[in-house]
Amino acid sequence: MPRTLALLAFVAQAWAQLEGRGFPDCSNGPLADNAVCDQSLDHVTRAKALIAEFTIAEKINNTISTSPGVPRLGLPAYTWWQEALHGVAQSPGVNFSQTGDFRYATSFPQPILMGAAFDDALIKDVASVISTEARAFNNFDRAGLDFWTPNINPFKDLRWGRGQETPGEDPYHLSSYVHHLIQGLQGDDEKYRKVTATCKHFVAYDMENWNGNLRYQFDAHVGSQELVEYYMPPFKACARDSNVGAFMCSYNSLNGVPTCADPWLLQDVLRDHWNWSSPDYWVTSDCDAIQNVFLPHEYAATREEAVALSLKAGTDINCGTYYSQHLTGAYAQGLINETDLDVSLVRQYTSLIRMGYFDGTAVPWRNLTFADVSTPYAEDLAYRAAVEGITLLKNDGTLPLKISSGTKLALIGDWANATTQMLGNYAGIPPYFHGPYWAANQTGAEVLYARGPGGQGDPTTDHWAPVFSAANESDIIVFAGGIDNGAEFEGSDRTTMAWTGAQLDIILALASYGKPMIVLQMGAGQLDDTALLKNENISAILWGGYPGQDGGRALFDIIQGVVAPAGRLPTTQYPAKYIAQIPMTDMQLRANATSGSPGRTYMWYNEEPVLPFAHGLHYTNFTAQVKSGGSSGHSSDSYEISSLLHGCSESYLDRCAFQTFSVDVANTGSVTSDYVTLGFLAGTHGPAPHPNKRLVAYERLHNITGGSTATAALNLTLGSLARVDDKGNTVLYPGDYALLIDVQPLTTVNFTLTGEATTLDHWPQPPAERVQTGDYFVGGYGSGAPYQLQFPVDV
Amino acid sequence: MPRTLALLAFVAQAWAQLEGRGFPDCSNGPLADNAVCDQSLDHVTRAKALIAEFTIAEKINNTISTSPGVPRLGLPAYTWWQEALHGVAQSPGVNFSQTGDFRYATSFPQPILMGAAFDDALIKDVASVISTEARAFNNFDRAGLDFWTPNINPFKDLRWGRGQETPGEDPYHLSSYVHHLIQGLQGDDEKYRKVTATCKHFVAYDMENWNGNLRYQFDAHVGSQELVEYYMPPFKACARDSNVGAFMCSYNSLNGVPTCADPWLLQDVLRDHWNWSSPDYWVTSDCDAIQNVFLPHEYAATREEAVALSLKAGTDINCGTYYSQHLTGAYAQGLINETDLDVSLVRQYTSLIRMGYFDGTAVPWRNLTFADVSTPYAEDLAYRAAVEGITLLKNDGTLPLKISSGTKLALIGDWANATTQMLGNYAGIPPYFHGPYWAANQTGAEVLYARGPGGQGDPTTDHWAPVFSAANESDIIVFAGGIDNGAEFEGSDRTTMAWTGAQLDIILALASYGKPMIVLQMGAGQLDDTALLKNENISAILWGGYPGQDGGRALFDIIQGVVAPAGRLPTTQYPAKYIAQIPMTDMQLRANATSGSPGRTYMWYNEEPVLPFAHGLHYTNFTAQVKSGGSSGHSSDSYEISSLLHGCSESYLDRCAFQTFSVDVANTGSVTSDYVTLGFLAGTHGPAPHPNKRLVAYERLHNITGGSTATAALNLTLGSLARVDDKGNTVLYPGDYALLIDVQPLTTVNFTLTGEATTLDHWPQPPAERVQTGDYFVGGYGSGAPYQLQFPVDV
Repeated sequence: MPRTLALLAFVAQAWAQLEGRGFPDCSNGPLADNAVCDQSLDHVTRAKALIAEFTIAEKINNTISTSPGVPRLGLPAYTWWQEALHGVAQSPGVNFSQTGDFRYATSFPQPILMGAAFDDALIKDVASVISTEARAFNNFDRAGLDFWTPNINPFKDLRWGRGQETPGEDPYHLSSYVHHLIQGLQGDDEKYRKVTATCKHFVAYDMENWNGNLRYQFDAHVGSQELVEYYMPPFKACARDSNVGAFMCSYNSLNGVPTCADPWLLQDVLRDHWNWSSPDYWVTSDCDAIQNVFLPHEYAATREEAVALSLKAGTDINCGTYYSQHLTGAYAQGLINETDLDVSLVRQYTSLIRMGYFDGTAVPWRNLTFADVSTPYAEDLAYRAAVEGITLLKNDGTLPLKISSGTKLALIGDWANATTQMLGNYAGIPPYFHGPYWAANQTGAEVLYARGPGGQGDPTTDHWAPVFSAANESDIIVFAGGIDNGAEFEGSDRTTMAWTGAQLDIILALASYGKPMIVLQMGAGQLDDTALLKNENISAILWGGYPGQDGGRALFDIIQGVVAPAGRLPTTQYPAKYIAQIPMTDMQLRANATSGSPGRTYMWYNEEPVLPFAHGLHYTNFTAQVKSGGSSGHSSDSYEISSLLHGCSESYLDRCAFQTFSVDVANTGSVTSDYVTLGFLAGTHGPAPHPNKRLVAYERLHNITGGSTATAALNLTLGSLARVDDKGNTVLYPGDYALLIDVQPLTTVNFTLTGEATTLDHWPQPPAERVQTGDYFVGGYGSGAPYQLQFPVDV
Repeated sequence: MPRTLALLAFVAQAWAQLEGRGFPDCSNGPLADNAVCDQSLDHVTRAKALIAEFTIAEKINNTISTSPGVPRLGLPAYTWWQEALHGVAQSPGVNFSQTGDFRYATSFPQPILMGAAFDDALIKDVASVISTEARAFNNFDRAGLDFWTPNINPFKDLRWGRGQETPGEDPYHLSSYVHHLIQGLQGDDEKYRKVTATCKHFVAYDMENWNGNLRYQFDAHVGSQELVEYYMPPFKACARDSNVGAFMCSYNSLNGVPTCADPWLLQDVLRDHWNWSSPDYWVTSDCDAIQNVFLPHEYAATREEAVALSLKAGTDINCGTYYSQHLTGAYAQGLINETDLDVSLVRQYTSLIRMGYFDGTAVPWRNLTFADVSTPYAEDLAYRAAVEGITLLKNDGTLPLKISSGTKLALIGDWANATTQMLGNYAGIPPYFHGPYWAANQTGAEVLYARGPGGQGDPTTDHWAPVFSAANESDIIVFAGGIDNGAEFEGSDRTTMAWTGAQLDIILALASYGKPMIVLQMGAGQLDDTALLKNENISAILWGGYPGQDGGRALFDIIQGVVAPAGRLPTTQYPAKYIAQIPMTDMQLRANATSGSPGRTYMWYNEEPVLPFAHGLHYTNFTAQVKSGGSSGHSSDSYEISSLLHGCSESYLDRCAFQTFSVDVANTGSVTSDYVTLGFLAGTHGPAPHPNKRLVAYERLHNITGGSTATAALNLTLGSLARVDDKGNTVLYPGDYALLIDVQPLTTVNFTLTGEATTLDHWPQPPAERVQTGDYFVGGYGSGAPYQLQFPVDV
């Protein structure tokens, strides 16, 4: 069952289980005299005082996500499972009202579209609104205080059914994005955390089901080099650099060990190496990933061993029931002791204490109400987020296109009258749905609507006749289609990146009218637009992802030039044949002659993409110039490595400053427009093969008027320059470097590093038997390569 | 969109389009004077007289499945799309009532379970009930007269989402089954056909979507030998041997040509070679397969060419709208002429005339009413069909198990309280749902019900706690799970044949109680039962497929021994790893060292199955003995080929009699039971490689009481002995033959053929460029083999 469905089905049940929820009563009742209610004490002392009152059974009962609390102590039930991917979302711990207050919350675009904005300040603003609304829900007992968001697994394979939840394919981009997101969610109050964010899914999880390779049993084979350079950075950003309050371990195993049962991953890497050691930090399992440790992973011989291994590895909370069912047995068998339970429970309750769960009105957000939900500011922000993300893929000059009153506008396709489609998964209930049809009607046009063929492979032509009558009568044709959550969803990966034959037939037929013809390509995973890009009768293509509650307005404002597009594709657009060149189970990024893989992501793909990562057109033209010298004042084109490190006092050497490049961006056209200043690094440095290039900095500049110039500051650290060796160490190498501004570089800065290669970060080595060496490609069919299917045997 | 959903969504629309439907009025109005109403004339003359009145536009309008008729002529609208796979079914042309009469119809088990009965007489009885109920619906304007059933593509790959619609994997079995089914549907009235059956999907269609290989664009590569010996026989049985009234061409192409646009297939093979030439026989396209000829097949350069090629190839009706949209253009371009239209229209209306559409009360079934729907006889037949198909896969002696009043019976699993699940796809509305929960309660047991984990991969343990409390309290445990239409459905193939980790965890945990533990394995595609078969604490496994409206009663009657099981698996049960050994796109049946394929079906699979084709246990034991001499009187063990042919006056030599083997079957136990007498042929004859064995005859014997003997007659023809050469010719070869009675043979008859190999059937050769030679394996990943994905390019 798609998790989203399971989730909705689960809501009613979860709420039934959570009767007696609410804030603990520190004024009266049994807790009043417990030190947990003493705000003068430190968090850990308070937490320990609370759990000191628990029996063993009560401790075990409270290791799961639907924590029953301890009624006899006056400790209420609490559910740890709230969702807020792009707004407070329906989930077991969130309870929207049927009527009146709290019947909706602001619904922002999906992360894949917000990622396309390349605007970190926007992300922080969005996250601040979400946490404010979450606190308002919490104040009225309609949500907890922790949220299982963000999903920051890099979206390396566009088949992934959950790619929509991520900001894209680039690890630097995700790291920067998530840093700002967490700031917005967790707030900057010195005493209290606003809400707890949860970075998921740790780690190397980016497949639902490829040919029977289910996420629940998949063993990801990843070498240390690519693990550190690609799969880990967003999580490092969460843990080491952003103080996120929680992590979620994933369904898959990594090099043989289920992540939730992996002490190397959860202790050596996460808690020790990244110093993610605050006593209030906790790890939850993905839902029933602990059951999966037993079956289908078959990593533990018994159910008791599965829960003991997971708890001792550092998984503090079990989404599911395996801990509560089997820790009693594990305890009886001596596989865990009371201290093991206490470690996790202290983390849980310290986290709640840090969010003021026991502190009543002392908490700064306790006065928020539904008046603070879906405010005009929030609604405008949802609109702006959509506008900033929408990306212009093709334009023959038709756009912007003023739509006059009385213009006959044919609006066709199964996204044309989108409502919930616009939200994508893990959504809440928005205040309204302003879809394309709604927005088209606001223009004053006479809208000729026809649904046309669906994106799910529906082959029937039954809906087609109205399409052609609408097109016939129209002055302008807008086709809104692509894919949606019927084609890409949790539990199911796409099996094609081609437009369906039916949709392509309709699009090409519409193009043959020779009228202004605009295609709105919707959904997260890119489709191969080759035929649309080539066809001269298709005037323009806008990619709209899942644009949220105001998505239609954002699209039509861009069509009309009310605002100018400046989004950039957060993923590569591959030719459709790509999916036959590489199995989803192949985690390797570099091209591989043995397997025939052409490589993954813009960094390593060695063929011609249909559209490159970060592609995005404008209504105007830009030039760029890098001013000499950054904030460091250094203006040479050659740098000695030891000098760069000299005097850096950062605790992590990759944070040491290198240069801030000031980039003057001039709008040489006449249309006011944002511009995303992108800095890619290329060059010959570090271990071969070398990536095509890699993103190291970006800044979105706003509202540059025609003829004027704005300046972006691209901060490069030593980490920006460093590469990763085959042991996973981060190393600064001598060699040639080139900083390219934009995809088709508007300007380039070349420089050289000299001296000795210097390690900035020593990667904690996994146990020797888990090191992946050589060709770790897996998943081939008919090739004799090992396959990743695991089959239940006699257990 | 799954077709079943598309179909339901389409019902309302179709009915709206069909206003004005009903029988033509031959008494008054414009038709009264047309020869079509003159019952004294032959059918073709009448049909030609009707369409002579049509304009070109009216002819084109009436080439699609939602035929508008010709209002000005008083010819009503007619929809060709009715479904009746296992009972009158919801479909565009069938209209169940909300209340009162016609709110339900008898819902038989899915064909996969009726196939397991191996009882041709049963199938004819079921089909007769269906056609009677269909006629009753028709009399009250709630259904048309033709039905797009049966689906007789052999179920060679258990991943196929539509395998449930077929009787199984064996082509002889399907041929015999479908012959009797068509007799029941079409009736044996000399003047009128009861309803028209439609054999689909012609041909080599048995995949929805494997890794992006969509049915709409897949090109099946099949050599002539396997085409004739495996993919064609059920269709030959329909066309040549059963006078089916209609065919449906499929979505896929065959060796480069979409089947609906293939004159070799529709004319040379179907109409000429098989002599399927009655003027009332028509071919419909699968729904929008004509659109697919254009895209995604890209077989035609223009839409007009696509419709012209299809019409001229012999596709008479277009399910969809492409004909009505584009034949006008094709006509204008001279790609078709009026005669091309007339050919198809004469077929359509001759068919309707043959069913008495214009003949009012002269038609023998015109007096049927809702009183003839879901009669006690029909309801009992639905129950018996389920009983006969249910197959006992494992039994340690626990079954039959008398359930006493007050026995505490734990009934667990997501099939435990099944309702619509029991129907499978293409279903109608049954009079009732007697599921396992209902049936368990009839036993007088105290039923402890818990839903448990779902079969769709739902990983959550949320429903688990009640499972264990039910098991704890129980005396007997029945687990009802497996898969259903959430896992196998139109548009989607399975990607695993393993039990989910969650279901396996629950099953093994339930087994650990050491109580009588019965597993009901439901759904069409087999699951790998290895772990369940090995586990000594699992007492019994019954496979129940989709057992229809009375499925729960049938299952519990078998559990209790009210009736004895005698069903046989209609497919092989493979180990789960099988799906990683062969892509669905590989149509080859023989094992292939190059691709690593271990072969398909019990005939060619060269590894050990978990359970073999036709496996099925009983509550008693049987022995068998073949009596010498059959109806031909020949009792030697050696036969000269020319003598066998001498004196045979059959128009098709494969129909010539060989021997009727009389098999005495003795029930040596004490339980009265049916027994399916199966005759497999093995031996060294004809071209190598030789199949392991092949089914050539079967007969189900009924109610053999303990200690008594019954006799089956296994009729073998020369066609039974013949094999197919690489050109597709059917040849009788000299060599050694062995007739094996049953899977683990109870007895064997050896004989020899001598003399010259003699061709019984010369296969019409396809155009040279379409002949598949050598290694036509396709679809490998990472193997360098050609893949079958086709990508829309610039059209």
